[in-house]
Amino acid sequence: MKIAANDPHLKSWIEVSPDSDFPIQNLPLGVYSNKLVKHRVCTAIGDQVVDLYALAELGYLDELGYGKEIFDAPVLNPLLSHGKTAMRKLRNHLSGLLRKDNDRLKTNAEHRSMALLPQNEVEMLLPVHVGDYTDFYSSIEHATNVGTMFRDPKNALLPNWRHLPVAYHGRSSSIVVSGVPVKRPMGQTRPEEEKPPVYGPSRLLDFELEMAFVTFDGKALGEPIACEEADEYIAGMLLFNDWSARDIQKWEYVPLGPFLAKNFASSISPWLVSLDALEPFRTAGPKQEPEVLPYLQYKGEKNIDINLEVAIAPEGGEESTVCRSNYKYMYWNMNQQLAHHTVNGCNVRCGDMMASGTISGKSPDSYGSMLEITWRGTKPVSLKDGSQRKFLQDGDTVIMRGHCSKDGVRVGFGEVRSLVLPASN
Amino acid sequence: MKIAANDPHLKSWIEVSPDSDFPIQNLPLGVYSNKLVKHRVCTAIGDQVVDLYALAELGYLDELGYGKEIFDAPVLNPLLSHGKTAMRKLRNHLSGLLRKDNDRLKTNAEHRSMALLPQNEVEMLLPVHVGDYTDFYSSIEHATNVGTMFRDPKNALLPNWRHLPVAYHGRSSSIVVSGVPVKRPMGQTRPEEEKPPVYGPSRLLDFELEMAFVTFDGKALGEPIACEEADEYIAGMLLFNDWSARDIQKWEYVPLGPFLAKNFASSISPWLVSLDALEPFRTAGPKQEPEVLPYLQYKGEKNIDINLEVAIAPEGGEESTVCRSNYKYMYWNMNQQLAHHTVNGCNVRCGDMMASGTISGKSPDSYGSMLEITWRGTKPVSLKDGSQRKFLQDGDTVIMRGHCSKDGVRVGFGEVRSLVLPASN
Repeated sequence: MKIAANDPHLKSWIEVSPDSDFPIQNLPLGVYSNKLVKHRVCTAIGDQVVDLYALAELGYLDELGYGKEIFDAPVLNPLLSHGKTAMRKLRNHLSGLLRKDNDRLKTNAEHRSMALLPQNEVEMLLPVHVGDYTDFYSSIEHATNVGTMFRDPKNALLPNWRHLPVAYHGRSSSIVVSGVPVKRPMGQTRPEEEKPPVYGPSRLLDFELEMAFVTFDGKALGEPIACEEADEYIAGMLLFNDWSARDIQKWEYVPLGPFLAKNFASSISPWLVSLDALEPFRTAGPKQEPEVLPYLQYKGEKNIDINLEVAIAPEGGEESTVCRSNYKYMYWNMNQQLAHHTVNGCNVRCGDMMASGTISGKSPDSYGSMLEITWRGTKPVSLKDGSQRKFLQDGDTVIMRGHCSKDGVRVGFGEVRSLVLPASN
Repeated sequence: MKIAANDPHLKSWIEVSPDSDFPIQNLPLGVYSNKLVKHRVCTAIGDQVVDLYALAELGYLDELGYGKEIFDAPVLNPLLSHGKTAMRKLRNHLSGLLRKDNDRLKTNAEHRSMALLPQNEVEMLLPVHVGDYTDFYSSIEHATNVGTMFRDPKNALLPNWRHLPVAYHGRSSSIVVSGVPVKRPMGQTRPEEEKPPVYGPSRLLDFELEMAFVTFDGKALGEPIACEEADEYIAGMLLFNDWSARDIQKWEYVPLGPFLAKNFASSISPWLVSLDALEPFRTAGPKQEPEVLPYLQYKGEKNIDINLEVAIAPEGGEESTVCRSNYKYMYWNMNQQLAHHTVNGCNVRCGDMMASGTISGKSPDSYGSMLEITWRGTKPVSLKDGSQRKFLQDGDTVIMRGHCSKDGVRVGFGEVRSLVLPASN
């Protein structure tokens, strides 16, 4: 299917630097705030934010037939509730309005001044109200690394792993946006096997490099979404940092899975990049062996080539990249994840978030967590300031970035950047 | 603390049968619908529903200073967002209005006809919008039974079990109210260890007898709720059927916990019984050995004596009670659960739901799931119609009930009643 807004030859009348994540081919959605407005739905182009409520007020979105109030909402959910076709129409419309040969907004200086704001002068808010958040475990390299370290190197993958995309439910209340500091959690751990557990700050705080997708309203409870339908229910993607307290996790997670080791915070990037904008960057996924059951079989290229990186900046210091990975490594794709999640009739609602699990590649410099990068702390990583890290320290800032690149077009996610605060004891 | 509405000597001018769950000492909150109204917040007394929006419209709630619209809401959340003190004021106020010696509403036939409706003429809706749903695993008898069956009878409890209330996140989107049928889930299982997994309807569908509590707004992200503060953040309780597909669970749950085995549906009773109304039925919990860490220590009696039962009614047949248990058996109480859940700074929001985990007693007739009652299907249970059950059959209706009883006062939860529908293949 051809999506007009994806034309790689399009240029905007707004200047876009070649290394910007936000060319006219992206047009992600977000919600900003500044001194004048509490919340406004917006898109990004170059280093600018385009206020969609302002555009609606000025009549530029009349053709779409939305109520203006959905652009004045604190989250994208009212907009997303219109579904895939409507969202595509909106993106194509914005693309038309911003392209070089369209004079309508370009030549109206007053309207431009009302609708355009520099990105560095606004605060980006949490873009969606997340109903349910699910975390998958879909990178075979990550699952193998963890299985090797914690269980049996010869049987690193558990018997179910290649047959279904393993997942668990996470906490939606503690999902925060880039820029919100994250406090080191307090909790119960058992540092010495033979002694009683202790209470204190987590000593093994980690990030997990993930991507998440956000859904449109799914089907009714009891009605599964098939693999081949899944694209129609996925609104877009964003960067996801699944903070993890490894010492809490180790002690608590048997037999019902991670809980307090994860639910103190998860951080996301503020821009929802539409699945439409990512279509040009589709690529084939790894071959799945053994063959999966029919309800998990898919056609076409369902992985996406997204370059990912993680950097750590110590307090007052320069950032050091500690991981370069790629979303295309995922063993299980989003279509399979959504089909599996709903095969039992579980219902999905507009704004639900499903994260990929840690995205690790084959080589140690592509591992998506400190646990793997430093191999449980046995191989500390050096930062540019000469300091070393086994896990994260208070005052560290963790920055994740991601972008696709093809045919001279770069479509990116911006970043999720979070400062680690000390625990409050 | 003395709560006026809890006076065991109070009687209402509305007749209440001695075996009713809804005397004037209860006054639970719910949301009803009928042919005339889409949703109305209400309370129950005897076999009547009292429409709180009607009372508000007629000026009976003016003293409380709420906006009327919170009683016309589709869920209790706007009302719950006022917090514990306001909710107590409301219940005391309603108690005053309904007591025998108060003529205000009692003597106004027109107003009575506007505010009172027979319970059997209304449909009760899902009472709360659940933000996050957490399921604990807090019955030592249940955890021991499961550990004995699936792991090692000599080490049935895992090392962490007596040190912290084990829990995992569940799915909020698929929580449904009593009366909504539940479809047997399709899914992936591995019936024969040496053969590949298969896709089909779950063969081992089960209930789990649980109670859940609903929270008021908690503290900000990063701020734990202490054990001794927990009561102030708990709005009330209801019955909770944590449907479980044992064959799906067995294959999927390692290493990240139950997922599709649970998230196809959870069923709750429609009435939120306030923690205030349950205060007279507090009782001591089991002694916790070894001593728990200070953040989990509590003062006073924090368990509650709630008689629970589960019955199965085959299609067109009489119901047979298969379990009689009691909430007082819980090893970990709600205060400890909430303190543990937030010790890492995890935030809790108004309407969050936290279920107890299966509530089993010591004897087989008090086990809270078919898995335990029939000991994995090895000891089928006989129903009154002569049929036997290892697990649930299509067409079975599962009914859970619960009530407290003391000083001649019975405060109950009504029931959660759900018909099992065949899988749609």
